[in-house]
Amino acid sequence: MERAVRELWAESRDLLGLGSPSPDDTAAKASAVPRADLPPTPLAFLRDHVSPGRPLIVSAAATRHWPAASLWPTASYLTDALRSTTVSLHLTPDGRADALAPHPGRHESSSKCFASAHVRRVDFPAAVRLIRGSDPAAGLVAYAQQQDDCLRGEYAAVAGDVDAHVPWASEALGCLPEAVNLWIGNAHSVTSFHKDHYDNIYAVVSGEKHFLLLPPTEHHRLYVRDYPAAHYVAEEKDAGGEHQMRLKLELDEPERIVPWSSVDPCPASPEELDAQASSFPLYSDGPAPIRCTVRAGEMLYLPSMWFHHVSQSPGPNGLTIAVNYWQVWFFGR
Amino acid sequence: MERAVRELWAESRDLLGLGSPSPDDTAAKASAVPRADLPPTPLAFLRDHVSPGRPLIVSAAATRHWPAASLWPTASYLTDALRSTTVSLHLTPDGRADALAPHPGRHESSSKCFASAHVRRVDFPAAVRLIRGSDPAAGLVAYAQQQDDCLRGEYAAVAGDVDAHVPWASEALGCLPEAVNLWIGNAHSVTSFHKDHYDNIYAVVSGEKHFLLLPPTEHHRLYVRDYPAAHYVAEEKDAGGEHQMRLKLELDEPERIVPWSSVDPCPASPEELDAQASSFPLYSDGPAPIRCTVRAGEMLYLPSMWFHHVSQSPGPNGLTIAVNYWQVWFFGR
Repeated sequence: MERAVRELWAESRDLLGLGSPSPDDTAAKASAVPRADLPPTPLAFLRDHVSPGRPLIVSAAATRHWPAASLWPTASYLTDALRSTTVSLHLTPDGRADALAPHPGRHESSSKCFASAHVRRVDFPAAVRLIRGSDPAAGLVAYAQQQDDCLRGEYAAVAGDVDAHVPWASEALGCLPEAVNLWIGNAHSVTSFHKDHYDNIYAVVSGEKHFLLLPPTEHHRLYVRDYPAAHYVAEEKDAGGEHQMRLKLELDEPERIVPWSSVDPCPASPEELDAQASSFPLYSDGPAPIRCTVRAGEMLYLPSMWFHHVSQSPGPNGLTIAVNYWQVWFFGR
Repeated sequence: MERAVRELWAESRDLLGLGSPSPDDTAAKASAVPRADLPPTPLAFLRDHVSPGRPLIVSAAATRHWPAASLWPTASYLTDALRSTTVSLHLTPDGRADALAPHPGRHESSSKCFASAHVRRVDFPAAVRLIRGSDPAAGLVAYAQQQDDCLRGEYAAVAGDVDAHVPWASEALGCLPEAVNLWIGNAHSVTSFHKDHYDNIYAVVSGEKHFLLLPPTEHHRLYVRDYPAAHYVAEEKDAGGEHQMRLKLELDEPERIVPWSSVDPCPASPEELDAQASSFPLYSDGPAPIRCTVRAGEMLYLPSMWFHHVSQSPGPNGLTIAVNYWQVWFFGR
């Protein structure tokens, strides 16, 4: 049985042309996301990536014509363009929103909940100051990651700086994006392993995004379990003339259960690493996730249902900025 | 449970854009194969037909440039071009090759076997005479239906009269045909319900082909069961100066089991019809198969794994002539 499962992992990666990792391979070489120097034709994209569910990184040629490519990485353009815009900012103490956290009502270290960020509406220049100053040591990490078509909503003033859709993808999929989102963070924001039901085109404008990917065939390696939902609430006070905010985790009322991956690929301590290795052997003992870095200007096509964990490095402006397009590939419409 | 299954049938046909048949619909209107006046672009073909697994009929515009379109329907062209060619001719007493037949060793009417044709190598002009003269009343139906890439093999002398591949399909699928077959029969040859693991492009050159189709989601309606394999053997004698041939069914030795659909959509007698209705209620009580007729010049794209039953009408030359291209759509190669 175990052998059959290991063969499934290897064969499905092999079928996807992502390499069949063996102990001899260097991980980076064995499981690499294909790269294209030029945007694919709609036919090649559909045939070679969408239909088989195979990711693709397209070089900066894909976004070179976007005004955002030159404007957004500069220090002041976005804060000027959005100076009177109120945006939704996601706040956590540690940069881990929509991730597992210690259960607030139980004290065993193994007891976890699913923690959502505290979302606060702030004007954009203040949001950028909070994002740049994010620091888990100070207990506050801010991430602009409202995923409700926000580029065409809150950020409509700058939406024209990028293509309204990715033409080769729209033609291949036969539809326009359902949502276009803007993401602005710094190195401290991390997105835990999850999957989306949308096909995703993720374009980095400033900095880099680092992805860990697992294909849908390795779903069972991620130990998706039910966790009680919780959310951060802000406790504020003025102390010595200074405004202070502390984020505290509270369980959702009424109780809500969220199925989420139990695996943290970047555990914070050796103890946590040991605990993961013994609790989640299918993850720890199996092939490493497929790693890729998407640099400023590049686009990642990530098929729906692929598990992904995302961390990031800021550009010279201190920010990681990205735009993603969510599209439904649902033939027959 | 039964309601859920009926919903599956209706929803999958609806998703495929083939209509959701209800008792009020006229069957022909409700479940029609889409038709295109012009060959599709490779992208539209892949996106709208191959990926969702939705059949398509393309009008005669697809084959109008083939020399075969004008040459093959004439009475003498093929017999001239192939006058010294030996071909494989499939002989049955009733036109039903690769179909269920009464078990030769058991006498209950319900006992069936899977019967293969008697294949005889004859020169092409003789093959055409036998096909034209096919008649179940005389106990002999001949069908040239060798499915081993025969157009590029036995019939290579006329292979250049059709396109070597269907360009929009090859570009969409990213591969050339695995096999190109020629089919020559008359009204008495019928192909029983079965599925192929290849994507199929079926081009009619003379006469008409009548298809009954069921999508893969309705597989369980066809009662695929194990049947012992048998084959027709020829018993020949000269009687009164005349050569006579009688085809007799014999079980394969060693025994071989073939899984095959138990359903005959065109039963020969009212008794057979009643027996089918009581034995195969999922077929009899469910939505009718999707019917389509492919006329001379037209092409049918039939996705792999669709069950199909095929009958035919001859053209003015007394023959139904068709060419099919089998292609493997297997992303990742």
